Amino acid sequence: MIVLGIDPGTAVTGYGVVKGDRSLPPRLIECGVIRTRPRDTLAQRLREIHDGVAELIERHKPDAMSIEDVFYARNVRTTIVLGHARGVILLAAEQSKIEISEYPPAEIKKAIVGTGGATKQQVQFMVARILRLKTAPEPADAADGVAAALCHVMAARLPKITDEIRLISGRR
Amino acid sequence: MIVLGIDPGTAVTGYGVVKGDRSLPPRLIECGVIRTRPRDTLAQRLREIHDGVAELIERHKPDAMSIEDVFYARNVRTTIVLGHARGVILLAAEQSKIEISEYPPAEIKKAIVGTGGATKQQVQFMVARILRLKTAPEPADAADGVAAALCHVMAARLPKITDEIRLISGRR
Repeated sequence: MIVLGIDPGTAVTGYGVVKGDRSLPPRLIECGVIRTRPRDTLAQRLREIHDGVAELIERHKPDAMSIEDVFYARNVRTTIVLGHARGVILLAAEQSKIEISEYPPAEIKKAIVGTGGATKQQVQFMVARILRLKTAPEPADAADGVAAALCHVMAARLPKITDEIRLISGRR
Repeated sequence: MIVLGIDPGTAVTGYGVVKGDRSLPPRLIECGVIRTRPRDTLAQRLREIHDGVAELIERHKPDAMSIEDVFYARNVRTTIVLGHARGVILLAAEQSKIEISEYPPAEIKKAIVGTGGATKQQVQFMVARILRLKTAPEPADAADGVAAALCHVMAARLPKITDEIRLISGRR
C-alpha cells in the first residue's frame, strides 16, 4: 500500500509518500513541500497546490491520501484560507479516484509520538526513527506530511476484528 | 463584458451570467444553481462544484468572475467548509485565466438594493427589476449569483477618475 500524506497550507503544503506492508516496516519513498509565492493571488497559489498534488498522485500512483483535518486556528481567517487549500487538495484526490482519509492533527501526533500535544521536533524525531532515516525530514512541514502518511499506514496495519475471529476459529 | 457571478456553497452554489455594456442596460444570459448530493463525500461534492463552474466558463467564456467573499458564519465549521467550495471555484477561474473579483455579501446587497442588510426577497425583487425580468430568479441562491455578477457590472460602469480628468481637460 502506497500512501500520500498531506499537511495542507496555502504558503507551504508538506507531503510524504510512504510504502506500507503487512510484514515489512514502512518505507519512505519521497517527501518535500509545495511552496507558493507570497505575492501571487490566492487563486494562483491554489492552482500551484492543486497541480503539485495532482503531479505527485500521477507520479507515485498512491492507493490512498491521508490528510490533516482542519484545525481551528485562533485566527478564523487563517482557518478559512486553509479550507481553500484543503478544497483543491481533496479535489485532486477525487479527480484521481483515490481513497481519502482525514485525521485530526492531534491524532496523527498521538500515532507517531504517543501524545497529541507533541512538538514539531518530536514528530520529526519519531518520523526519522520509525522510517530508520539518518536525518529527520526538513522542513518540519515535510515531516508533518510524512507523519500523516505513517498514521494511515499504521492504522491499516492494526489487525481487524474479523481477522482475529478467523484466527481464533482456525479458519483463513 | 460578460460576467459570471457566483454565490458559493457546498450544498447549493448559485450562479448568474450577465452581459454588461457601457451604453446598454445589463442583460441576463443565464442563471441557476449547482446542487450537490447530501450523501456524497465532501470531495465528491467539491468535484461537482468545480466541474459545474468550469463547464459554465467553457460555455459562456466570461471576461470576469465575480464571487461572494467569505462571510463569517456564526458556525465556524460552516465557514470552513464554505472555504473548501470557494477554493475549487477560484481554481476553476484561475485554470481558465479569467479575472476574479471578490465582494463581501453586504457590498453586493448595497449595490443592488441600496442597503447591506437587505433580505433575500429584496435582492430577488431588485435583480428582476434591474434586468427587466417578468419573475424573480428562483431559487434565491440563483438570484444571489446574478446579484454578484450585477454588482461587478455596475462597478465597472462607474466612470473612472482618469476618464473624468480627460473629460475636464478636454483630451481623449
